[in-house]
Amino acid sequence: MKKNKIPDIIIGRLPLYLRALQRMEDQGSVVTSSQELGDWVGISAAQIRKDISQFGEFGKQGTGYNIKFLREKLREILKIDRVWDVAIIGMGDIGHGLARYQGFLDRGFRVVLAFDNSPEKIGTKIGNLLIQDTADMAAAIKKAGIKVAMVAVPADNAQVVADELAKTNVSAILCYAPICINVPEGVRVQYIDPATHLQWMTYYLE
Amino acid sequence: MKKNKIPDIIIGRLPLYLRALQRMEDQGSVVTSSQELGDWVGISAAQIRKDISQFGEFGKQGTGYNIKFLREKLREILKIDRVWDVAIIGMGDIGHGLARYQGFLDRGFRVVLAFDNSPEKIGTKIGNLLIQDTADMAAAIKKAGIKVAMVAVPADNAQVVADELAKTNVSAILCYAPICINVPEGVRVQYIDPATHLQWMTYYLE
Repeated sequence: MKKNKIPDIIIGRLPLYLRALQRMEDQGSVVTSSQELGDWVGISAAQIRKDISQFGEFGKQGTGYNIKFLREKLREILKIDRVWDVAIIGMGDIGHGLARYQGFLDRGFRVVLAFDNSPEKIGTKIGNLLIQDTADMAAAIKKAGIKVAMVAVPADNAQVVADELAKTNVSAILCYAPICINVPEGVRVQYIDPATHLQWMTYYLE
Repeated sequence: MKKNKIPDIIIGRLPLYLRALQRMEDQGSVVTSSQELGDWVGISAAQIRKDISQFGEFGKQGTGYNIKFLREKLREILKIDRVWDVAIIGMGDIGHGLARYQGFLDRGFRVVLAFDNSPEKIGTKIGNLLIQDTADMAAAIKKAGIKVAMVAVPADNAQVVADELAKTNVSAILCYAPICINVPEGVRVQYIDPATHLQWMTYYLE
């Protein structure tokens, strides 16, 4: 695999393919085509074939892709053929929602640690998940060997949290704070901020 | 303005610039440079200059950008120099969080309608926002002249909701359901699905 040479944008599409394949399988389908998969995700069949062929020969001309096989391959490639333990920092509405979200486990993630700095929240539970003091965050995350974190604190606290995470082995951060955070080299950050998505679309509105 | 020729990816970066400029202004800054703005958003100064110059001459060689002026220009370009009324469909954890989120109004959006299909939720309120029956959605959204919607229903219901929205003037949809929805031509959709973001990053983890 020419791993380092595959454009990041292609990697970003694989989770979408995987999500569609999962739904196809749930609906009882066994085989699919790049055309059908393309219709599901709104991407051309040619692009899908090109993307997937970066990683090997997973389909056959004329017969298409075996859904279960392609799913397994994509899960291996994305390294979610295992379960990643995840920490959530910030247990407001968003953190709370993420902690309760049932959709992670099927897709490779399990929330095992939760932190907040509010005395009213520390020590309370969401399901089985105990909310711990943010002050203990770096040590607890390090001890648990966690590499994936979701940051759902206000913008003003996000960099402080990022600096704490820099003391751990976390190298993938999903940031819900509406601010770009500075992280050490080698750490990846992706952002979720609904207002920026909406603003992107209003440009096109009449 | 060569509006139709500006790549969508550039439009997508403008909200990030705007968000950073807002924070600079909040911190009392008056002037910035493409270098400083680039540091805030993790994009090269050259790219920032190139992106912004697509829309006109908003800065001066040597003196940089006036923050307030550039913010106003970006707000005009993104059409958020006005406030867009927004409908939320699906009032689970995510919809609830979006309805309570205080960050929209400053950034061009006001949630004015909320819908759910659960009898326990219909008729209850979140702040001043009344949760209405999804069955009345299309009529209410049409009557209110709403063009922007956030869909936070389970994957299995998302296409039905999209089909209902197709009967209205909604042409920008932020979809939290983990599925790609089919919409009429001219309608834009952006997706927020934390698991796909996480999976994108685990590819790079050791």
